Amino acid sequence: MQKLRNHQPGSAPATLAIPSTPQGQKPAISLIEYDAHHLEERKIEEVENLADCLNNDQVSWINITGLGDAEFLKQLGAYLRIHPLALQDMLNTGQRPKLDEFDEQFFVLLHMIYKDKDEELLVEQVSLLLGRNFVLTVQENRGKDVFDPVRRRIREGGGNLRFMKSDYLAYTLIDAVIDNYFPIVDSMVDFMEDLQEKLLDHPTREHLRELHDFRRTISQIRRSIWPQRDILGRLTRDESGLISKRSKPFYRDCHDHTVIILDLVENFREATTNAMDLYLSSISMRTNEVMRVLTIVITIFIPLTFIASIYGMNFDPKASPFNLPELELPYAYPTVLLVMLIIAVSMIVYFRRKKWL
Amino acid sequence: MQKLRNHQPGSAPATLAIPSTPQGQKPAISLIEYDAHHLEERKIEEVENLADCLNNDQVSWINITGLGDAEFLKQLGAYLRIHPLALQDMLNTGQRPKLDEFDEQFFVLLHMIYKDKDEELLVEQVSLLLGRNFVLTVQENRGKDVFDPVRRRIREGGGNLRFMKSDYLAYTLIDAVIDNYFPIVDSMVDFMEDLQEKLLDHPTREHLRELHDFRRTISQIRRSIWPQRDILGRLTRDESGLISKRSKPFYRDCHDHTVIILDLVENFREATTNAMDLYLSSISMRTNEVMRVLTIVITIFIPLTFIASIYGMNFDPKASPFNLPELELPYAYPTVLLVMLIIAVSMIVYFRRKKWL
Amino acid sequence: MQKLRNHQPGSAPATLAIPSTPQGQKPAISLIEYDAHHLEERKIEEVENLADCLNNDQVSWINITGLGDAEFLKQLGAYLRIHPLALQDMLNTGQRPKLDEFDEQFFVLLHMIYKDKDEELLVEQVSLLLGRNFVLTVQENRGKDVFDPVRRRIREGGGNLRFMKSDYLAYTLIDAVIDNYFPIVDSMVDFMEDLQEKLLDHPTREHLRELHDFRRTISQIRRSIWPQRDILGRLTRDESGLISKRSKPFYRDCHDHTVIILDLVENFREATTNAMDLYLSSISMRTNEVMRVLTIVITIFIPLTFIASIYGMNFDPKASPFNLPELELPYAYPTVLLVMLIIAVSMIVYFRRKKWL
Amino acid sequence: MQKLRNHQPGSAPATLAIPSTPQGQKPAISLIEYDAHHLEERKIEEVENLADCLNNDQVSWINITGLGDAEFLKQLGAYLRIHPLALQDMLNTGQRPKLDEFDEQFFVLLHMIYKDKDEELLVEQVSLLLGRNFVLTVQENRGKDVFDPVRRRIREGGGNLRFMKSDYLAYTLIDAVIDNYFPIVDSMVDFMEDLQEKLLDHPTREHLRELHDFRRTISQIRRSIWPQRDILGRLTRDESGLISKRSKPFYRDCHDHTVIILDLVENFREATTNAMDLYLSSISMRTNEVMRVLTIVITIFIPLTFIASIYGMNFDPKASPFNLPELELPYAYPTVLLVMLIIAVSMIVYFRRKKWL
Amino acid sequence: MQKLRNHQPGSAPATLAIPSTPQGQKPAISLIEYDAHHLEERKIEEVENLADCLNNDQVSWINITGLGDAEFLKQLGAYLRIHPLALQDMLNTGQRPKLDEFDEQFFVLLHMIYKDKDEELLVEQVSLLLGRNFVLTVQENRGKDVFDPVRRRIREGGGNLRFMKSDYLAYTLIDAVIDNYFPIVDSMVDFMEDLQEKLLDHPTREHLRELHDFRRTISQIRRSIWPQRDILGRLTRDESGLISKRSKPFYRDCHDHTVIILDLVENFREATTNAMDLYLSSISMRTNEVMRVLTIVITIFIPLTFIASIYGMNFDPKASPFNLPELELPYAYPTVLLVMLIIAVSMIVYFRRKKWL
Repeated sequence: MQKLRNHQPGSAPATLAIPSTPQGQKPAISLIEYDAHHLEERKIEEVENLADCLNNDQVSWINITGLGDAEFLKQLGAYLRIHPLALQDMLNTGQRPKLDEFDEQFFVLLHMIYKDKDEELLVEQVSLLLGRNFVLTVQENRGKDVFDPVRRRIREGGGNLRFMKSDYLAYTLIDAVIDNYFPIVDSMVDFMEDLQEKLLDHPTREHLRELHDFRRTISQIRRSIWPQRDILGRLTRDESGLISKRSKPFYRDCHDHTVIILDLVENFREATTNAMDLYLSSISMRTNEVMRVLTIVITIFIPLTFIASIYGMNFDPKASPFNLPELELPYAYPTVLLVMLIIAVSMIVYFRRKKWL
Repeated sequence: MQKLRNHQPGSAPATLAIPSTPQGQKPAISLIEYDAHHLEERKIEEVENLADCLNNDQVSWINITGLGDAEFLKQLGAYLRIHPLALQDMLNTGQRPKLDEFDEQFFVLLHMIYKDKDEELLVEQVSLLLGRNFVLTVQENRGKDVFDPVRRRIREGGGNLRFMKSDYLAYTLIDAVIDNYFPIVDSMVDFMEDLQEKLLDHPTREHLRELHDFRRTISQIRRSIWPQRDILGRLTRDESGLISKRSKPFYRDCHDHTVIILDLVENFREATTNAMDLYLSSISMRTNEVMRVLTIVITIFIPLTFIASIYGMNFDPKASPFNLPELELPYAYPTVLLVMLIIAVSMIVYFRRKKWL
Repeated sequence: MQKLRNHQPGSAPATLAIPSTPQGQKPAISLIEYDAHHLEERKIEEVENLADCLNNDQVSWINITGLGDAEFLKQLGAYLRIHPLALQDMLNTGQRPKLDEFDEQFFVLLHMIYKDKDEELLVEQVSLLLGRNFVLTVQENRGKDVFDPVRRRIREGGGNLRFMKSDYLAYTLIDAVIDNYFPIVDSMVDFMEDLQEKLLDHPTREHLRELHDFRRTISQIRRSIWPQRDILGRLTRDESGLISKRSKPFYRDCHDHTVIILDLVENFREATTNAMDLYLSSISMRTNEVMRVLTIVITIFIPLTFIASIYGMNFDPKASPFNLPELELPYAYPTVLLVMLIIAVSMIVYFRRKKWL
Repeated sequence: MQKLRNHQPGSAPATLAIPSTPQGQKPAISLIEYDAHHLEERKIEEVENLADCLNNDQVSWINITGLGDAEFLKQLGAYLRIHPLALQDMLNTGQRPKLDEFDEQFFVLLHMIYKDKDEELLVEQVSLLLGRNFVLTVQENRGKDVFDPVRRRIREGGGNLRFMKSDYLAYTLIDAVIDNYFPIVDSMVDFMEDLQEKLLDHPTREHLRELHDFRRTISQIRRSIWPQRDILGRLTRDESGLISKRSKPFYRDCHDHTVIILDLVENFREATTNAMDLYLSSISMRTNEVMRVLTIVITIFIPLTFIASIYGMNFDPKASPFNLPELELPYAYPTVLLVMLIIAVSMIVYFRRKKWL
Repeated sequence: MQKLRNHQPGSAPATLAIPSTPQGQKPAISLIEYDAHHLEERKIEEVENLADCLNNDQVSWINITGLGDAEFLKQLGAYLRIHPLALQDMLNTGQRPKLDEFDEQFFVLLHMIYKDKDEELLVEQVSLLLGRNFVLTVQENRGKDVFDPVRRRIREGGGNLRFMKSDYLAYTLIDAVIDNYFPIVDSMVDFMEDLQEKLLDHPTREHLRELHDFRRTISQIRRSIWPQRDILGRLTRDESGLISKRSKPFYRDCHDHTVIILDLVENFREATTNAMDLYLSSISMRTNEVMRVLTIVITIFIPLTFIASIYGMNFDPKASPFNLPELELPYAYPTVLLVMLIIAVSMIVYFRRKKWL
C-alpha cells in the first residue's frame, strides 16, 4: 500500500510543500496554444509569458512536468485564479483521485498506472485543471509521459481535437490516462488463468505467494479506478456548462471505459477468492490422499508385524507345552505366512470397497 | 475471461479499426422494409441503395453480418447520422453491454451467448441502433444467426409485429437475444444438482475442477446479463418518446426475463459457494474418518507389538533369575496372549464409547 | 432449483401455450358475485355467461383452477381486456412473482408454497388480475386450494369483506397466499435449532446432507418471498387509485408479513452459514483430538518398542565382551523395564503439561 | 429463534385472539392524567371511566399490563378509534417491531429485552399508541415493568416531562424501552473480549459452544434493534405534526441511541466471525504442532527400530559366512549403537533446520 | 471495544452527570477572541466573563479542557442557548461521533485518536459547538491537547484563519482532529506488509495474535472515522447558512481526508482477511508437508521392518523343513537385504513420481 502524504498534522490547510523526492527538481513547463487553424508550442519560463494566451479564443494547454517549483506554481495559481486547495493537491502526491468543482474551474486528480522495467506496477499522480479556455496539467513524470500521443494528435490535427474547446482537450487527456489501464489489466487475464490452472494441479507455497501478490495488485488498481469512475460519472452529469453538450458523449465513453476496467478488476477479485478456495481445497485433498496412503500402509503392515513379533518371543517351548507350541509344528511357518497373506488381501479388499484405493 | 479490445492507448477516440479476426470479411448487408401491408427484402451493396427506404413510413431493418467493411460502415454512419462513438463500438468486439442515448437514436450493445459444437460457451457481440423509422443491427456472426426467427415472423406476418413501429421491432430483436440465455441457464440447473450430489458422496479432484469451470461460466453469463438488465430497465423508463407507450409493456416483459435469468445466475453463484463448502467439509470429514481408522489400528496393535517385543528380548534367564523369568513359566505364553486380548478388547470398547467405531 | 418456462427462443411474445403437464386438463371456472346484501355462486362454462356480472356494482370473483384451456382464456382475455402478456404469464408456470400495471388493471403473479404428503416443499404459481369491479384468479391447483377459507368467509359474511370492493378481495386472496408461508417457516425454526445442536455434538455426513437440503429449501423460499415483498410494497404505495385508501392499511399489513417472513429466512441463511462453520470447526476439533490420541500412543510406545528391539538383537555376547554384555547382567531385565516405565511416565507428564491429556 | 404468531392461515385479518399463554389473564389497566399543575392516577375497570379524560387538555397515559381481555380491548379500540389492525398487533406477540401511521395516530410496536434470573435473554413485546392527547401502552409484562421509572418521573415532576405533550410522553416511554438495551450490550463487551482471549490460547469445544450461543444472542438483539432504528428514524422525520418540533431533538437523540446499539451489535457480529476464524486457525495450528511431534518421534525411531530388527533376524551365521556375519564381530554392537545415535542426531538437526523443533 | 456511557436506564434525558473518572476535575476554560486586527486570550472563571465577547463581531473560541464542572457547563448552556441534549452529550464520554443541528447552532462530537506511551491506541471524545460568532470546544484532555497547533496559528496570524469567521475556525479545529489519524494509519501500512510477509514464511501462533490485535485496532478506527465522514459530508452540504460558501471547499477538503482514511482502513480490513486466509493456507500447506515426510518415512520402513520381523520369528527349522528354511540358506541374508533395498528404492521412485519428494 502506498503511504499517505507527509503533511504535518495541525499545519495550515493549503500549505504548499515541495515533496522531498528526487524528482522534485525544477519542473519543465510547456504551452500549446491552438485552434482549428493555428498551433503554437513553446517553453514557459516566467508566468508573465502566459499573459496573452488566456485572453484569446484559442485553447491553451499548460503542462508542468515535475513538482519542484512551488513558487512558480503559486504565481501561476494567482494568475489563473486557482483555489489554494487545488494547488496544494497538485503538489501533495499519494492522494486519492478526486474531482473538485470551483467557480468556472474543474480540478481533477487522477492516477496513472504503468509498469517499470522490473514489471512492477507504479502509480503516478496526474492533476488536471480545466478552465474556460485553458487546461493545466501537472505530472510527477517519474518514468513515462502519458500525454505524448495527445501532443502528437494536436500537432497532426487529425480527428476533431483541433475543432473543439478546452473541455474536449481535457477529455482527451483524461482518456489518455484511463487508456493506460487496459494493457495492464489485459495482461492480468492470462496470468490469472494460468495461476488457477496451476493451483488446481499442484498447489505450492510459491503459487500462494503469487496469488497474494496478485491480490495486492488488484487492490491497488481498484483503489485507483474506483474513484476515477465516480469522477467521470460526475463529469458526464455536469450541469455547470464547463463540459459542452457536444463533448458529453465522449466523457460518457470514457466513463464506460472505467466501468469496463472496474468490472474486470471486480472479476479478478472474485477469481482470486475462488483461487484461494481452490488452493485450500487442493491442499486438503492432497493431505487426504497422503493420509490414505499412510493409513493403508500402516493398516496392512502393523498387524502382520504384530503376528511376526508374536512368534519372535523367546518363551521356552521346552519349559511347558503351552509355551509357543506352534514353533515346533511342522507347517507352522507356511500357515503363518498364509494367514498374513489373507489378512493383507482382505485389508486391500476393504480399502477398495471404501474407495481409498 | 475475455480479453479487452485491442485499442492502442492514446489513439484518437472513435477510430474505426477492422478487427483482425478471420471473420473480418466483407460483411453481408440485408434490408427488410415493411408495414402492415407491404414487405420487401433485398441485399444492399451501396449505401445509396438505402436512400428511399428512410424517407417513407415503413419500418426498415438493416442487418449487417460480419465486421469487415469499415468503409461501408463509415458511409452508412454519415447517411444515418450515427455518432462516431456508436460506430466505433459496433466494430470493437469484447465490450460490455451498454445503452447510449443520442439525439433521436438509441444505441444498444448486447451479448448473445450460445454453445458451440464442443459444448463450450461463446459470447458474441450484437449491436442495435434504433432510429425513428429504422433499426440497424450489426452481428459478428461467427456461428449463429440469432435473428432468423424474427425474420420468419416478419415474413409470416403473425403476431402484431407488422402492425407496429421500429421500437417494437427493436424489442423483438432484443428479446430474441435475451431468449437465447434460457436454454443455457436451464441446462445448468441439472448440472449443478448433479454436481452437489457428487460432492456430498465422493468428492474428487475432478469434481473440484468441474465446480471451478462452472463458476467461471456463471461469472461470464453474469457479466453479460447484469448490464443488459440495466439497459432494459432504462429502456422501460424511457421518456424520450422513441419507445412508444404501446411497446413499453413488451420491453418491461423483456426486462423481467433478464431479471429471471440474473436471479437464477445469482442462485448458481450461491450454490457454487455452498458446493465449495460442501467439498471442503466432505474432504475434512473423510480425512477425519481416515485418521480414525489409522488411530484405531495403531492404538490397538502398537501396545501389543510392544509386549511381544518385550518377550523377544534376548536376556539370558540363565544368567540371573531376574532376567525374563517369565520365559520359562509354564503358562506364560497363554497368559500373555490373554493379556493382549484384554488390551485389544478394552481399546475397542473405548473407541466405541468415543463413537469412533 | 425449478426449471424455467419451456418457451421456444425466438417465438413471438404473448404466445399462449398450454403447459404439457398432466394437470393441463379442462379447467374448472367458478364465479362468485357479491355485495353487502347479495351473494351468488355459479360455475361458468361460456365466456358469455360473464356478461351481466361485469356491468353491475357487485364484486365479481372469477376463479380458474387448472391451466388446460387456452382458448377459453383467450376469449376471457378479450372480454376482460386483459393484456396478452398477462394472459401469457398466467399460463407459463415457473415464473418469478411479479406485478404488472396495465390500464385500470393490476396483474399479480404469486408463488404459493405448501408441503406435499412426503413433506417435500412444492411451489405453485397463482395469478391474480385486479380490475375495477372484478378479480380474476388462476391457479395451477395441483394439490391444494389456497382460496377455500376466503370462499368460506365470503359466504359467512364475517369481517368486513362483504362491505368492501374488489381491491379488498384482492388483498384477502393475496394474504391467503402469503399466510401459507408461516407454518412452513415456523416448522423450520425447530429443525434448525436441532440441527445446530447435533452439529456441535457429533457432526456426521448425514447432518451435512440435512444442512445442505435445508439451505436449498431456504433459497427456494427466499426466491419466492423476496419479489412478493416488493410487489406488496408497490401495491401499498399505489397511486393509480385501484387500491382504495381504506384498503391500504391491509395491504401494508400484508407487506409487513412478507417482511417478517423474509427476515426469518435471512436469519436462516445466516444460521446455516454459522452451522457450516460449526460443522467444519467441529470436524477440525475432532481430527485434532484423534491426532492427539494417536500421537500420545505412538510417542509412548515407539521408543519403548525400540528399546525392546535393541535387546532382541542377536549379537553374540560370546564373540566379544562388547556385544550386548547387558544380556547377561543379573539385573538387566528389571532395569530395562524400569527405564521403560520412566520414559512412559515422563511422556505422560509432558503431554499433561501440553494439555494434550 | 422466536416462533411466529399462531395465526391460522386464511383467517380474517384483524382477528383478536387472546394468546393462550399463562399471562393471558385479566389485564391490569391504569390511567395517569397530568399536566404541569395536576396529576391523577387511577385504576380503570370499565371503558366508560375513560370518558372525561380524553376531552380535556391534559395528557392521558393508559397502560395495560397483560393481554388477557380481548373484549375490553375491543371496546377501548372503538372508544379511541384504534384501527383494527393495530388492535390485532397489540395482542399477537412474536412480531417484528413496526410503526404504522393511521389518521391522527401512530402505532408503535417495540421489543423490550431483559435478562431473567437464569441470565437468559428474553424479548417482550411492548405496543404504544400515540394520539393527540393520549398515549396507550400495552405490555405482556411477564417479568419486568419497564415503565416504572417513567411513572416515578411523572409523579416527581422532575425534568420537563410534565410541561410537554403526549408526543414527549411517547418519546419518554420509547426511550425507556431502548435504554434497556444498553446494560445488556455492555455486558457482552467483556464477554467477547474474554472469549477471544480463550480461543487464542486453548480452543475447546466448550468455547465453540459459547461462541455459537453468543452469535445467536447477537442475532436476536439485532433483529429487535434494526427495525427500531428505522422506526425512530421515521418518527424523527415525521411530517404529520403528531410529533412537535420541540420533541423532535429528543426523538433524534433516541434514534442516535439505537444507532449506537446497532453499531455495537454489528461490531459483535464481525468480532464473532473473527473469533470463528481464530478458532479454526488455532485448531489448525494445534493439529500442525501435534503432527510435528508425531512425525519427529516416528521419523527418529522407526529407522532405528528397523536396524535393530535386522539384527534380530535369526539367520544362522553358521550355515554360511554371508548370513549375518556382523553378529559375531567383536565391535558390532557398539558400532550399531553409534550408527543409531548418528542417525538420531542428524534427524534432529534436520528438523531443527526445518524449524519443526 | 469501548464500553458505553453509564447512563441509568429510565433516567430523564439530558441529565448532566459528571463522569466518575479521575480527570473529572475542575476544568480549565480559556477564551480566544480575535478578528483580522485584534487578538485577546484569557482564562475564564465565571460565565459572566463571557458577556461582552458574544455581542461583538469578533470570533470567540471558548475551550473547556476536562469534564469536571457540570454546574459551570449548565450556566454556560443557558448563556449560549445550548440545547440540553447537546450539553449532555458533551459530558457523556464513550459516544459515537455525531452531528446535531439545532437552531443557529451545530453540535459536532468527534473522536480524536492518538497513541500513548505504551504505543496503545486511545480514543478521546472532543465536542464542538458552532454558533454564529463563537465556537465552543470541550475536550476530555487525558493526554494530548490536539488544538495547540491551531492556537499557535491564531496567534501567529498566518494563513487566512484570522480573516474568516467562526465556521472557518470550526473547520480548522475539526481538521486538526482528523489530521491526527494520518500518522497512525500510516504507521499501520508498514506493520501490515511485514505481517503478511511473516505469515507467508513461517506462520506462528504469535503472528496470529498480532493479526487479531491489528483487526481490533482497525475496527476501532473504522468505528470512529466512518461517522466522521458522514458528519463532514453533511456539513459540506449544509444549507442553513452557518457554513459560508467560502468555507465550503475547506470542509470538502476535510471530508476528502476522512474518505482517504476510511479507504485505507477498508483496505486494511481486506488485507487482514487475506492475511487470515494466508495463515490458514500456510498452516495447511505445512501440515501437508509434515504429513508427506511422515508418510514417506513410514511407508519405506514399515514393510522393511515387517520383513525383518519375519526372519526374527523363532520357528524351529529343525522341527520341519517348512519352518523358515531360509534361515539356513547360504545367501539368505544378502538376498533379504537386497530385497529390502529394492523395496526402499521403488518406494522413493514412486514418491518422486507423485511429487511428494
